[in-house]
Parts: sequence; structure tokens; C-alpha cells
Amino acid sequence: MIRIGIDMMGGDFAPAEAVKGVAAFVANNQEAAHLVLIGNKSLLQEHLAESQIPATAYSIVHASEVIEMHEHPTKALKEKQHSSIAIGFHLLASDKIDGFISAGNTGAMMVGALFSIKAIEGVIRPTIGAYIPREDGSLGLLVDVGLNSDCKPENLNQFAVLGALFAEHILKVNQPKVGLVNIGEEEGKGNLLAQAAYPLLKDNQHIRFVGNIEGRDILLNKADVMVCDGFTGNVVLKLAESVYDIVQRRNIQDEHFDRFNFEAYGGVPVLGVAKPVIIGHGISHATAFKNMINIACKMKETDLTGKIQEIFRTN
Amino acid sequence: MIRIGIDMMGGDFAPAEAVKGVAAFVANNQEAAHLVLIGNKSLLQEHLAESQIPATAYSIVHASEVIEMHEHPTKALKEKQHSSIAIGFHLLASDKIDGFISAGNTGAMMVGALFSIKAIEGVIRPTIGAYIPREDGSLGLLVDVGLNSDCKPENLNQFAVLGALFAEHILKVNQPKVGLVNIGEEEGKGNLLAQAAYPLLKDNQHIRFVGNIEGRDILLNKADVMVCDGFTGNVVLKLAESVYDIVQRRNIQDEHFDRFNFEAYGGVPVLGVAKPVIIGHGISHATAFKNMINIACKMKETDLTGKIQEIFRTN
Repeated sequence: MIRIGIDMMGGDFAPAEAVKGVAAFVANNQEAAHLVLIGNKSLLQEHLAESQIPATAYSIVHASEVIEMHEHPTKALKEKQHSSIAIGFHLLASDKIDGFISAGNTGAMMVGALFSIKAIEGVIRPTIGAYIPREDGSLGLLVDVGLNSDCKPENLNQFAVLGALFAEHILKVNQPKVGLVNIGEEEGKGNLLAQAAYPLLKDNQHIRFVGNIEGRDILLNKADVMVCDGFTGNVVLKLAESVYDIVQRRNIQDEHFDRFNFEAYGGVPVLGVAKPVIIGHGISHATAFKNMINIACKMKETDLTGKIQEIFRTN
Repeated sequence: MIRIGIDMMGGDFAPAEAVKGVAAFVANNQEAAHLVLIGNKSLLQEHLAESQIPATAYSIVHASEVIEMHEHPTKALKEKQHSSIAIGFHLLASDKIDGFISAGNTGAMMVGALFSIKAIEGVIRPTIGAYIPREDGSLGLLVDVGLNSDCKPENLNQFAVLGALFAEHILKVNQPKVGLVNIGEEEGKGNLLAQAAYPLLKDNQHIRFVGNIEGRDILLNKADVMVCDGFTGNVVLKLAESVYDIVQRRNIQDEHFDRFNFEAYGGVPVLGVAKPVIIGHGISHATAFKNMINIACKMKETDLTGKIQEIFRTN
């Protein structure tokens, strides 16, 4: 049975919302996974006692420390060996769990993913992708959204492969279209990075490259996987998130813009590391936790890591 | 009297919408400017005959050619000396007009602004800024939005000054707040460009620097002038434009999102060149043309160019 580790202390509403998320997952998928809940044991037991979760569905691993949101990632991860995030990565690295989820300190999650779990052989830089809701009801994937703020052309080329594998196996998009985020339609347009990445993407046999996509195409379905450096991707993602906030504040009821509630997607996968790692938003509520557990399960079930290894091995 | 040159042949709805825009401007500001209408004379006379524009408000300069939207900017500008854009820049360079406006080939407008008019002494790279509607009803300015896809830290530092002068004198923002578009709040965050630009902006005595702003802050009023490289800015601008399109397609009636109709703002100013140049959107209608004429007039009235020269001379 798949074992998913969950940092129960991460996020603004921990552990209450994490427990609710676990309950929601278990209610629908009791047989799908065994959940390893990492956090303050007595606090968790209090919350779990109030929930309807069968005791067989989970086990608790005590963590006496928490890495707070504002702490310096590398420093905190090193100094707080008994934190829920440090323990989570330790369990993952030592094969006690098959995937790890946290809505806690994003930086610490990135550092942990890169240094405790390590990149898959051949992957120069792992990446994080984010779901982008499109008008037709489908989801696109934007990679990178902040792990790699400065990129080389070969990084973008690899993000494309990693994103396409995720889109194919997790989002179930058949032959996902890969687009390069750029500021013009034709080859040769863009900054030096985009100009140099284009021919690499065009020649890449592992993806279905559809050319450049512009800012105006990101919310449409011109491409299923949209590749850019982490600086551009992070600005785009946070801008799109803010559109949802504005829509909410203005009391606009619209089912498409409801899908801009990025929290609902549950978190962004770290792609290119040897085990499934999902990083959640600090404001994650129950649905976000439930969805993150689902994604981690799917990543394990479909052996996404193995599929990535296979492609990068042959390159 | 201020003389503003208008490329009547540029844009998807030329010359009909350009003529309507001229009519709308003249109706409210007959004394404000003399308009020099550049384009096919007989075609213009036909359209003007149907309008209510007094003949004293304008003169026509015949242009026998048009640079089409798809043409290569440098090539077209060189080969089509009798095009409305080439003639416009010729008139501007020879002081026959005080400002020039076109909704035609954007690339040709950029090339013309950079090579016919030239940068103000001390300005390393001129820039183009775009208006950003904020929730509180005010307008922000995002610079650069595509003229400079690769930037050095000193470019961003200059865009900040150029944008702040525009915000102060044209948008009438008192002591405009300048923010650096980045992927984290604290100094030291971001890609190499943002990391290196931050201290320059912090030490810049000509601006009121408020630090980093993230993607989520762009549509709020955390900063009046938002500085970034032209790649990021262009992707952001086109994404924001597409939000308006989605709102329209979904029949959402909302006065804030109505302000995302970027066409209403009329065009983006080229900042840092020796004369007012405004580049309009290809889809410009009458209001856009009217507003572009207004902006060009304001740029001349307030002697924005002189104010830019003064600051860059002393640097």
C-alpha cells in the first residue's frame, strides 16, 4: 500500500485543516493509501479524536519542532532536525514513506526536495509546476513557477519534458502540447533565453512542441504545458492568484473564475526529484490537503518518477 | 500651438476609427492642439468630409504607402520612406510636429522612436510603459512592457526614473511609489537581475522606492510605477489584457474589470526618447485615438522630455 507522509504542522491553519483534509481523503479512498501524519503527537491525537478517521488509515510520527513560515530555509532545516519537515524528508529518503506533502515553509520544502531527495540522474535542475485553469474547463501546467529564477536554455528544455510527463500521467492529457512562454509568436522572438530555448524544444523528440505562446494565451488552452523561467512563472502565477482575490472581493459569481482559487488544486509538485514531493500554499484548507494527498498517490501509482528516469537515462 | 502628428493608416480599423478619434478629441479640445493627419490624402478627405471636424483643426500630410502589421519593422521603415510611419518620424525629427502617434506596426514604431528620434542623453535604453488598472480606481504604470526583453540592472534603474516622471507629470501622482517586480518581498530575493537592481533603486535619489512587489501586488496599488524587464512586463501585460477578454466572453458586468479594457487607455508612451511618441494597440478604436492624442499633448504641455533631460544630465 502506498504510504504518504503529511506535515500536519505546516500551513496557516495547521493542524486543524490538515486533519480535515486527511478525513476527506480517507472518506473516499480508504484503501488507496496509508497516511503517515507527522507533527506534535498529543496535539494531533486531540484533533484526530474529534474526527471520524478510522485508526487503521494512519499512523502518527511525532515531531517536536516546527519550521515557521518566516524562517530561513537552509538554516532552519539544518538546525531543526526534529521539525515535521525535516522528519518528513528523512522518512522519504529512507523509504519509510513514498511521498511527502507540506503546506509549511516553501523554501524549506524546496531545499529538502533538492538536498534530501536529490534530482533524478540527468535532471540538471528539478522544477515546480502550477496548475493553470483554462476557459474550456481543463487544467494547464506552468513550469517553472519559482524554484529556478535564473535559467539556462537546457533547463527550460528539461522543464518541458518533466511537465509533459506530469501532464500526460497525472493530468491525463493525451500527447500534451508544450508551449514556450514568450513575447512574440514567431521563432527568433523573445529574450536571449527564449531565443536559445526555442530550437532545443523544437528538436526535442520527447515532447510535442507547439511553439511560442504569449501572455494572452496562458489562460487559454493553446498549450497544456507552458515553459518559462521561474521568475516569469512566479510573477504570472501570483498575478493569476490575485485575479481570484479581486473577483471574490467584488462579489463576482462565475464558475470559471471560481477555478482561479488556486488553493483548490492543493499544491505544486516538485518535478525531477527521485520521490514525489508536493508543496502546498500556506493558506491551505482541507480540500487542498485532500487534493495534495491525491496527487502524491497518483504520482506514486503511475510511477511518474520511473518514467522520468527512463527518459533522462536515454538522453 | 501644440502640433500632434497622427498616423491615420495604422491599426486594424484605419482610417475610420482614427478619424472618429480625431473628431472626439477636437470636440472637446479644439484649442489644445493642431492635428497633422498623415495618410492617404483622398481617402482621408472622404472620411473627413463625413465628419464634423472644423477644417482649421487639422492639416493633412499625404502618405502614399502603409507599413502593414506583419512587415519586418527595420526593413519596412527603410524601404517605405513614403509610409505614414516613416513620414511621421520625419516630421517629428524635423520639428514639424511635437509628438507622433500610431496604432500601426509596433515594431516599426519602436525602431522609428529609437533611430529617428533617438534617446535622451544619458538614457541607455528608452522604454515603453503600460497602464495597469488598480482596484482603487487609480492607474499604475508597468515599465518595461516589451521594448527591452533583456535588461541590465542599470536599465531597470533608469526605467524607474522615466516611469516615475511619467506618473508624476502625466498621471498626476504625487511622489509616485516605485516598486521592483520580484518573486519575494525581502531585499536579496529574485533572479540575478532583480537582486542587482534592488540596491541601485534603493540608492536612487530621484525616486521613492518602496521595495519589491510580487505578482499579486501588480493589480493593487502597492506601487505606482512597477519596474521589470520587458520580457516579464510583456507577459504580465498580455495576461492582464486576456483577463478582460475572458470577463467579456463570460458576460461579467463589473466596472473594475471594465477598466481592464486596455484599449481605453489609448497606447503606451515611449519614455526616454527626445520627443513624445505614443504606440497604440492594433485594435484601437476612436476612444483609443482620442486618448493617445491627449497623452501626447500632456507630454508636450508638461515638457516631460525636458524634465527627463534635466535629471539625466545631472547624473
